[in-house]
Amino acid sequence: MIPRYSRPDMVAIWSPETKFRIWFEIEAHACDAQAALGVIPKANAEAVWKAAEATFDVARIDEIEAVTKHDVIAFLTHLAEIVGADEARFVHQGMTSSDVLDTTLNIQLVRASDLLLAGLDRVLAALKARALEHKDTVRIGRSHGIHAEPTTMGLTFARFYAEMARNRTRLVNARAEIATGAISGAVGTFANIDPAVEEHVCAQLGLVPETVSTQVIPRDRHAMFFATLGVIASSIENVAIEIRHMQRTEVLEAEEFFSPGQKGSSAMPHKRNPVLTENLTGLARLVRMAVVPAMENVALWHERDISHSSVERAIGPDATITLDFALHRLAGVIEKLVVYPENMLKNMNKFRGLVMSQRVLLALTQAGVSREDAYRLVQRNAMKVWEQGRDFKEELLADPEVTAALSPAEIEEKFDLGYHLKHVDTIFARVFGA
Amino acid sequence: MIPRYSRPDMVAIWSPETKFRIWFEIEAHACDAQAALGVIPKANAEAVWKAAEATFDVARIDEIEAVTKHDVIAFLTHLAEIVGADEARFVHQGMTSSDVLDTTLNIQLVRASDLLLAGLDRVLAALKARALEHKDTVRIGRSHGIHAEPTTMGLTFARFYAEMARNRTRLVNARAEIATGAISGAVGTFANIDPAVEEHVCAQLGLVPETVSTQVIPRDRHAMFFATLGVIASSIENVAIEIRHMQRTEVLEAEEFFSPGQKGSSAMPHKRNPVLTENLTGLARLVRMAVVPAMENVALWHERDISHSSVERAIGPDATITLDFALHRLAGVIEKLVVYPENMLKNMNKFRGLVMSQRVLLALTQAGVSREDAYRLVQRNAMKVWEQGRDFKEELLADPEVTAALSPAEIEEKFDLGYHLKHVDTIFARVFGA
Amino acid sequence: MIPRYSRPDMVAIWSPETKFRIWFEIEAHACDAQAALGVIPKANAEAVWKAAEATFDVARIDEIEAVTKHDVIAFLTHLAEIVGADEARFVHQGMTSSDVLDTTLNIQLVRASDLLLAGLDRVLAALKARALEHKDTVRIGRSHGIHAEPTTMGLTFARFYAEMARNRTRLVNARAEIATGAISGAVGTFANIDPAVEEHVCAQLGLVPETVSTQVIPRDRHAMFFATLGVIASSIENVAIEIRHMQRTEVLEAEEFFSPGQKGSSAMPHKRNPVLTENLTGLARLVRMAVVPAMENVALWHERDISHSSVERAIGPDATITLDFALHRLAGVIEKLVVYPENMLKNMNKFRGLVMSQRVLLALTQAGVSREDAYRLVQRNAMKVWEQGRDFKEELLADPEVTAALSPAEIEEKFDLGYHLKHVDTIFARVFGA
Amino acid sequence: MIPRYSRPDMVAIWSPETKFRIWFEIEAHACDAQAALGVIPKANAEAVWKAAEATFDVARIDEIEAVTKHDVIAFLTHLAEIVGADEARFVHQGMTSSDVLDTTLNIQLVRASDLLLAGLDRVLAALKARALEHKDTVRIGRSHGIHAEPTTMGLTFARFYAEMARNRTRLVNARAEIATGAISGAVGTFANIDPAVEEHVCAQLGLVPETVSTQVIPRDRHAMFFATLGVIASSIENVAIEIRHMQRTEVLEAEEFFSPGQKGSSAMPHKRNPVLTENLTGLARLVRMAVVPAMENVALWHERDISHSSVERAIGPDATITLDFALHRLAGVIEKLVVYPENMLKNMNKFRGLVMSQRVLLALTQAGVSREDAYRLVQRNAMKVWEQGRDFKEELLADPEVTAALSPAEIEEKFDLGYHLKHVDTIFARVFGA
Repeated sequence: MIPRYSRPDMVAIWSPETKFRIWFEIEAHACDAQAALGVIPKANAEAVWKAAEATFDVARIDEIEAVTKHDVIAFLTHLAEIVGADEARFVHQGMTSSDVLDTTLNIQLVRASDLLLAGLDRVLAALKARALEHKDTVRIGRSHGIHAEPTTMGLTFARFYAEMARNRTRLVNARAEIATGAISGAVGTFANIDPAVEEHVCAQLGLVPETVSTQVIPRDRHAMFFATLGVIASSIENVAIEIRHMQRTEVLEAEEFFSPGQKGSSAMPHKRNPVLTENLTGLARLVRMAVVPAMENVALWHERDISHSSVERAIGPDATITLDFALHRLAGVIEKLVVYPENMLKNMNKFRGLVMSQRVLLALTQAGVSREDAYRLVQRNAMKVWEQGRDFKEELLADPEVTAALSPAEIEEKFDLGYHLKHVDTIFARVFGA
Repeated sequence: MIPRYSRPDMVAIWSPETKFRIWFEIEAHACDAQAALGVIPKANAEAVWKAAEATFDVARIDEIEAVTKHDVIAFLTHLAEIVGADEARFVHQGMTSSDVLDTTLNIQLVRASDLLLAGLDRVLAALKARALEHKDTVRIGRSHGIHAEPTTMGLTFARFYAEMARNRTRLVNARAEIATGAISGAVGTFANIDPAVEEHVCAQLGLVPETVSTQVIPRDRHAMFFATLGVIASSIENVAIEIRHMQRTEVLEAEEFFSPGQKGSSAMPHKRNPVLTENLTGLARLVRMAVVPAMENVALWHERDISHSSVERAIGPDATITLDFALHRLAGVIEKLVVYPENMLKNMNKFRGLVMSQRVLLALTQAGVSREDAYRLVQRNAMKVWEQGRDFKEELLADPEVTAALSPAEIEEKFDLGYHLKHVDTIFARVFGA
Repeated sequence: MIPRYSRPDMVAIWSPETKFRIWFEIEAHACDAQAALGVIPKANAEAVWKAAEATFDVARIDEIEAVTKHDVIAFLTHLAEIVGADEARFVHQGMTSSDVLDTTLNIQLVRASDLLLAGLDRVLAALKARALEHKDTVRIGRSHGIHAEPTTMGLTFARFYAEMARNRTRLVNARAEIATGAISGAVGTFANIDPAVEEHVCAQLGLVPETVSTQVIPRDRHAMFFATLGVIASSIENVAIEIRHMQRTEVLEAEEFFSPGQKGSSAMPHKRNPVLTENLTGLARLVRMAVVPAMENVALWHERDISHSSVERAIGPDATITLDFALHRLAGVIEKLVVYPENMLKNMNKFRGLVMSQRVLLALTQAGVSREDAYRLVQRNAMKVWEQGRDFKEELLADPEVTAALSPAEIEEKFDLGYHLKHVDTIFARVFGA
Repeated sequence: MIPRYSRPDMVAIWSPETKFRIWFEIEAHACDAQAALGVIPKANAEAVWKAAEATFDVARIDEIEAVTKHDVIAFLTHLAEIVGADEARFVHQGMTSSDVLDTTLNIQLVRASDLLLAGLDRVLAALKARALEHKDTVRIGRSHGIHAEPTTMGLTFARFYAEMARNRTRLVNARAEIATGAISGAVGTFANIDPAVEEHVCAQLGLVPETVSTQVIPRDRHAMFFATLGVIASSIENVAIEIRHMQRTEVLEAEEFFSPGQKGSSAMPHKRNPVLTENLTGLARLVRMAVVPAMENVALWHERDISHSSVERAIGPDATITLDFALHRLAGVIEKLVVYPENMLKNMNKFRGLVMSQRVLLALTQAGVSREDAYRLVQRNAMKVWEQGRDFKEELLADPEVTAALSPAEIEEKFDLGYHLKHVDTIFARVFGA
């Protein structure tokens, strides 16, 4: 986790305080269930909830752990200090550490998912607003970085909206993947604890009991979760690279917002760097790097080995914190992106009308000109544009062989932008509804 | 694609013949839609279907491509040779190559998904049968590769079943991700073709029109698809490594099937290598390696660059063919796995009763013995087992300090396997239904 | 391996014919060494070389393998058919299959390295030629895609040369990594064969005996090899992306060569797509995807498991064939790259002189103007350029407050390109020698 | 960076304090060089060194950065506070931030390399000591996890030694890759600063001037560096998995050291988990995950984009800190590994002599028995061992058909372990010298 690429809400999910609070809730709910089953006295279960108001002393727990060499035991010892040793004596009965640790990890991931969904929603809202704003802002569509045919800035935003909406669905699925809990004992047989305890704890904490746990919750779930984060990050990169392209000096169709007072902006007005989207490109790589180790974590030995643990200590916080930050950074960039429609037109017309050459070629053929002749006619006029900077339409209108086949009105029509934009509404209806 | 790791059905999906057949269907359906819209004559649209019976001559198409340097044009030329140049003259009108290429790729991935689902179903059936067969076959559960508490072989199979069932759901989702088509032109604006054509073609071919295509279908879909294959592969590795562990000489709780006639098996009966599951471990790595490049493919420049294409030419066939093969190899391994219940018992009892030491420790405490004393009692008897190979239960029964706290019947009860297996039915009901 | 992204020389290294030929050589050299040790009769060793002239019949070997289920035995059987059963009866004595297979893989990788080095050399030659050609071709340097300060096209080529020269050194190291052989038996103890055999075979085949083999040659060597290929591929991507940027419509500082007759080029002169460098971007991803599985292959179980084998069957040919093709495609692109110096100047002057604003700012400060005032002076003239398209130098010359601090000559001097190019020779000397 | 997986020395390299100290040194050496060139006054250059004794106040620098929004300017402001505004006024002249930042990163990586080399040396020393100690400790060699032929524990250690020695060489190479510095200005042309400054600074700080820098040092160097760390991590995983296998209950040929007082060890003597090597398996995944993003960082746009920066902020510290910790953890594990030679023998003899069946088969053939008969003879005796637990040698000695071909002494000889160990010295000489 890099502090400068983090938001406090997401960081808080991964704090020791939050972790201990979740541990406490799992233990307390488990006590309730054990009491309901008659396994432990009701009074003891109730007593544990005294700690609900307490703040767990991380330093104190660390101190105890330094002696016991066991984090869960250290926590339970500290809990007993708060609740009272006698009252606390049934806490954790029949459970193993992994019951607490794995269920906690999943609760943290569920909460992280909720923040990420909020981040995605902010991105979606921004994209929708900008899409509607620029529905008819014409710009040149490019394949291979080369001018192709006209499109609109709104379609670009709408496309990113559709992509991020898919990511939202994926993230909802990924959240469901890891929204499970397990209180099933050393090898998952419930030897020392009734499955009813697991059911109660999970229900209270918004989880579903894991179908078959061993000592741990199966890691294919987490692999799928982090893979999904990797896809979302790749979509962020997709948007980021579009903006970086738009901002490059020769294109300048849009710029990341640059506050008026920002130093250097006006003495070097050409030197406004798309540093936020470049940063997003890098952050995407960081999120993505969690994917492979999460997959390597799936094949644990027998009922569990602990190789996954160190990996998750890193990628759990790192991938969610980085993605959360990236989503909000992206939303901010989109919300405030400065769009230059006039530059879009200027770029489109860089080779004065040449982007319409294919339409003209087609029109000539349809007007009965042979393929070879049509090609020759387009070519000789196109080359005047390309080499001498003439205007393509004017050249065509002045070429008697062309006007023999196409009337001036027909030629004009080939340069009508409306031709390219007639289905924009259809596409918008697909994305945002009618 | 490595021939020895491939099945003909999946290979066929990626053959040039299949590809050209799909190209043909897209073009023919598009002609139908164009005719219905009145854009082209109905007779021409109908004429195209003459080629439905034809087999496309791959060598001929390659020959034409060598001249035209364009695969789609080469195909269309050959199609015209079959259908008749005049009849075929409206084929592909208003479309761009990517309309055909991208829609075809997705059809291939959809078909690949269907085969993969069939493979998963075979794996699931095998796992279920073996789970029911070995529901009560006791074996030691292991954490960290070290004996922990008893479980059953059936639970292991049931656990893998639950994991593969999750993979089935994931694959159904992944299939939906890439079940889209696009006939939307050079930059996705439908400038030269009505969206109705896309709708018709997609409907006929079992696809959904892409919400917003540019020149291409957005690659976040494919990233999600290949990421899902990577997760499934990781689950295969998970099962494979369990079997490899079970087969190792010192464990020998199961073996891959070894045909009686297989050379070397009886002259060196100890030397039966788990080569199929080792191979599956490697194949999992191969499938997984598609994940990162598929994610790197998402961020294309503007309306498209073609960097994704070479990647997909490789990972499209390779990842699906390899995973398909791996699923069937895995199913075969599970179906025929030779399980040795007697060795499971022998292993569990390697340290004669010692795996029950924790239960005894707990029982002593619950019987009122102090934690320290209970620990000391268990320890001194455990060490006799560990160092002198004695039987733990017998030592306990012979220790007056122990029998002072626990009756012989109580001690016996701690060694009852039923204690560990009482919830197996509950877990099976979760997995397979009541 | 994708046929269209392959060169015959590299493909040939991975053919069954080549493989069997190498197997033969290993076996024949081993016989020589065994004969020299007196382990087998000299006549038999000599007889084996009869097969040196033979072409091994791959179909026949496959036929035998279908029966024996063992590739090396199938080969040896076929070899005996050529050499004579009696003469061949000492072939392979004391060896295990892995001795042959692992040594062969390394020979293939060594040969592949030699081809890759030749590819790198072609790339280096092309880069050097273009660097010298364009040493003084001025273009704008860009950070963040935004104009910064002038540089030259030659420096760009020289930079890529230096990077590829580093890659050459890395590849020489990587070649040494895998230039080892092993003839050491089932677990690497030389139980059934004298180390002298390994020494002789390795010496004959240009290899070094592996320090400690088990049944296999350790896979950290191969991990390092494929990691190195991944770095080289990333450098190819680096060059490719530079060219793609230069070719985009708005920049147009260079273009991939487009043959005059190439269709569409002159009717749509703006539509020349950098498809080769886009393709190289994708190929880089393909080569890179071998890196992680090669690293996952390192941790084999005990003296060997066979999980690495399927991985290597894929990445061995795929990564080397793809990289080989990519190097030659890149060399071709560089050799024929069409460079547009005039466009470079036009781009640099897009904001007429504004790229020099920082130098002017500095000059004003050094001339005694306060930081604040200098900033204000530059700003007000820069904004006229930015907003009204004026010429920066002219504005400065017309601004009395500026000319009060800097003489016209001093102002002129700030726009002198020579200032930026004065150390180009120094840098070239570093790269290419004085 | 996970605190529990870190060592203070490596963490310190990445602290703000260290970073600022390096920044200072670069600036101060640059001033010296500038003064030597006569660009700035000697007195000012000397004055800067006043700060050599100072500790930079990180909080103060952060405070300034909050205003200036620029880290290097914040630092320079603070430096001026220490040195005196007037004395400091020539600091950083002609330089750009990246000159400082990139050179600093490389200095940190060089120092990190030195610590990693020390870590490797400790691992090497431990492996050598244990190899010599267990040179003749016989254990069964295993292929596919299945018993093959005898080898020694010393050979296993020697093999790991040879692998780690290769890693040392690789790391020395990787260190050289990133031991470069650059003081070359905004686009690497030395427009505002003489190359002599770069040379002086690099010489003082143990670096080589970068051949061609742009605004940044080329990232293929860092890709190679992190790829090398990934290979080393994979080797750590290799050793870790061997130990995990040795410690599993059924094998128990070695155990990670377990301090006598460690709780649970004696009450559950079977339950000593190889948690350190499991942890190392996970840490290897963490180090490895830096490899792909480091390669993705190579293709920066033109003279630089800043996408690499966020990636390096994470993987720079994370990969080096984790690998450093892992090396020392591994060294500790090896140094104190508890080896159980008697269990090695017990395991080897699990199927009483059966591992020698292949030698017997060979001996029979060499004694003139036909292949078929030899196979039948071995088979019928082997099956008695396999199924009834008999002793293989005794069965052979009691089989008249066998003794008709081989004398008792010859049979005995086939079970001689010396046969397998005769070349151990040769191999040790290869690894450790004669």
